[in-house]
Amino acid sequence: MGFEPQGTLPSFFSARKGVAANRPTGIKDEGNMKRTAVGNMLIAQSGGPSMVINQSLVGAVLEARKQKPIKRIYGALHGIKGILDGKIIDLRRESAATLEAVAATPSSALGSVRKKPSPEDCVRIFEQLRKLDVRYFFYIGGNDSAETVHIIHQESAKQGFDLNCFHIPKTIDNDLRENDHTPGFGSAARFVAMAFMGDNLDNRALPGVKIDVVMGRHAGFLTAASALARVHPDDGPHLIYLPERPFDPDAFVRDVQGVYSRLGRCVVAVSEGVSDKSGTPIAATFIKEVDSHGNVQLSGSGALGDLLARLIKDKAKISRVRADTFGYLQRSFPGIASPVDSKEARGVGREAVRQAVKGGSGSIAIRRARGSAYRVSFDRIELSAVARDTRHVPDEFIAKSGNDVTPAFVKYARPLAGALPKVGRFKGKTVRM
Amino acid sequence: MGFEPQGTLPSFFSARKGVAANRPTGIKDEGNMKRTAVGNMLIAQSGGPSMVINQSLVGAVLEARKQKPIKRIYGALHGIKGILDGKIIDLRRESAATLEAVAATPSSALGSVRKKPSPEDCVRIFEQLRKLDVRYFFYIGGNDSAETVHIIHQESAKQGFDLNCFHIPKTIDNDLRENDHTPGFGSAARFVAMAFMGDNLDNRALPGVKIDVVMGRHAGFLTAASALARVHPDDGPHLIYLPERPFDPDAFVRDVQGVYSRLGRCVVAVSEGVSDKSGTPIAATFIKEVDSHGNVQLSGSGALGDLLARLIKDKAKISRVRADTFGYLQRSFPGIASPVDSKEARGVGREAVRQAVKGGSGSIAIRRARGSAYRVSFDRIELSAVARDTRHVPDEFIAKSGNDVTPAFVKYARPLAGALPKVGRFKGKTVRM
Repeated sequence: MGFEPQGTLPSFFSARKGVAANRPTGIKDEGNMKRTAVGNMLIAQSGGPSMVINQSLVGAVLEARKQKPIKRIYGALHGIKGILDGKIIDLRRESAATLEAVAATPSSALGSVRKKPSPEDCVRIFEQLRKLDVRYFFYIGGNDSAETVHIIHQESAKQGFDLNCFHIPKTIDNDLRENDHTPGFGSAARFVAMAFMGDNLDNRALPGVKIDVVMGRHAGFLTAASALARVHPDDGPHLIYLPERPFDPDAFVRDVQGVYSRLGRCVVAVSEGVSDKSGTPIAATFIKEVDSHGNVQLSGSGALGDLLARLIKDKAKISRVRADTFGYLQRSFPGIASPVDSKEARGVGREAVRQAVKGGSGSIAIRRARGSAYRVSFDRIELSAVARDTRHVPDEFIAKSGNDVTPAFVKYARPLAGALPKVGRFKGKTVRM
Repeated sequence: MGFEPQGTLPSFFSARKGVAANRPTGIKDEGNMKRTAVGNMLIAQSGGPSMVINQSLVGAVLEARKQKPIKRIYGALHGIKGILDGKIIDLRRESAATLEAVAATPSSALGSVRKKPSPEDCVRIFEQLRKLDVRYFFYIGGNDSAETVHIIHQESAKQGFDLNCFHIPKTIDNDLRENDHTPGFGSAARFVAMAFMGDNLDNRALPGVKIDVVMGRHAGFLTAASALARVHPDDGPHLIYLPERPFDPDAFVRDVQGVYSRLGRCVVAVSEGVSDKSGTPIAATFIKEVDSHGNVQLSGSGALGDLLARLIKDKAKISRVRADTFGYLQRSFPGIASPVDSKEARGVGREAVRQAVKGGSGSIAIRRARGSAYRVSFDRIELSAVARDTRHVPDEFIAKSGNDVTPAFVKYARPLAGALPKVGRFKGKTVRM
């Protein structure tokens, strides 16, 4: 897509030149100074699953089948753990129907892992990849996975092992640098928006205070997506708390009381990662406090919501207060993936293979075109540009009050989540008695 | 549907005869000894919302518009509270488009309430209904709502106020007597099945123990519906605990350890209402225990899941243990209602109006025809047959082990939840290294 790999990865190309003697046999010079490795491909999935991570996998596999330099197509089970343990499956053996069925299925079909390779792991990984004559390595995941790819890439250069390493972006947290947004976020945002649409209607029917805890430990994009649920001016979520702003329990109680006295009800979206001024997660503060009073070890995903609910009951003197924690459903619920997200997830997988065959290593970033119509392109970027560090919700997306998002965020997120169910409401012509 | 109201409600008809002097003006004798009241209709919604409760509302309203004896069509906001407070809207003023949009929207569009009318409330309710010249009263809800209708019906007979009272069934708990199943259950079951499909895939990708707490305090039908999620023999939920069997924490730990050692992972469905041998809810036991150690008031929906997770961590020595509590999403998530459930919910609303116009009071029950094809009919039943008491998951639906359901349950529930998303899985031809 208008990208020139020769221009942006000079260091890697010179590194390869410098280790020419160690270069494996499967390299041919295509005459235009670009070297295309011929050999096998290995792909794996890492980190938290998403609803569309298999679209990226299948996008890569289907593209690889078209690329002549790519011979066998291997899938490692449970990420680099599968490489280390030699748990590899042959993805050329899967039918087109199976691939399409897997693509439409949430959660990592190859299995996932949360593991950063140690230097010893890297040595072992190269042994395994050499054994399998792998020249193309693809790893689908977030910033930790990008770092893993980066480490493996650096080690491969050091060892003179000719490996084209590509990171394929995925994270429901939407916190990868360089990307306008990340595959997986749109579908998770769609789940969160739908959940809040329903929960707002539930709260409207049986009024009270409802606190919903949303995933996203450090980045509040997914919690912010709750704003997409609003249809009518009085719809919830009425308050939205992101980890990008310090969470003040007293201000929280005041905020809730304010909404409750105005509307007789209040729906709150809280990120699981909300933290106090010092950066300590509120969940941790509360849990520590409870620990000092007894042997209670609160270690489950419902704790923060329950504790915030107790705070409102105690301090705001509101009796009907409930909390739900959306949990893993946000990343794995089947049948409701955002169509745009599904298409883009497939696209980044396909693009990674295309770029890898051109030579070198990197990641694929989603860029959004300026203008009113939603349009994206995929860019090849350096692994170092996306690895490790994350991005946060920018200031222009957070309301000055610190308890809501801006219209700019809604405009940003709406096309990613796709069309939401329609909400019907009575005009409600009052009958005089 | 083949029902003869004269045959089943003799007492009510004689009661009405006995108070002929007090009978309001809007009664005409149709010549066939069946009296059709002419007057206004009032409808309201009560109890916990469901995804399809508005289908019943709209079914009743659309049918009422066709029935000549029914004049104005009133909706009371927040159930009997709206009648008491005089918060009534005119449902004849709503367009067909609005009605259809509302029908497809989850959660009680008129608002709901959890309130059992006192004798004083009843007096006031009759005053209000007289004022509005209401002859047809419809109340959509569960067994508590049926009891409310029953009380109002008995009081109306006592006072000689000619009121045709119908209960329209609704409950995601599926615990109404006389009914094969209840409107609202199929859609909630569909949500639970979808949630477990996704969660099983998530757990397969990142193995560990996952405990999901499902609604249904006294009846385990909704928790049992988690079994619909299974596609492959190794799919979760691997263990299902219903409130119909005593919950033994030690047996629970052993069960989880057994599955975990066999599959390396375990997905558990637990009803929020699981109780010990003495009938004390496990949640209550745990919470009491914590209370005695400090001032911790655990009062939120995440508590049971978190506490069961802690039990597994401590006793089974498994490190990755997570718990989610599905919460209100089970009854209010938009866009995924079961088509069969939606259709039947509309049907019971329509049928209640048809039966009410025939005269008398009662409820509508869903019966299933014997035979392999799924087919239902609606029967008119006595209010007393459905009010107050609930039904439980029958023994033939619960596995002997007490930690699963039987194939008979799956056969029973599958048509109610409707078609579920397809799950793709690789054949996974292993590569030898």
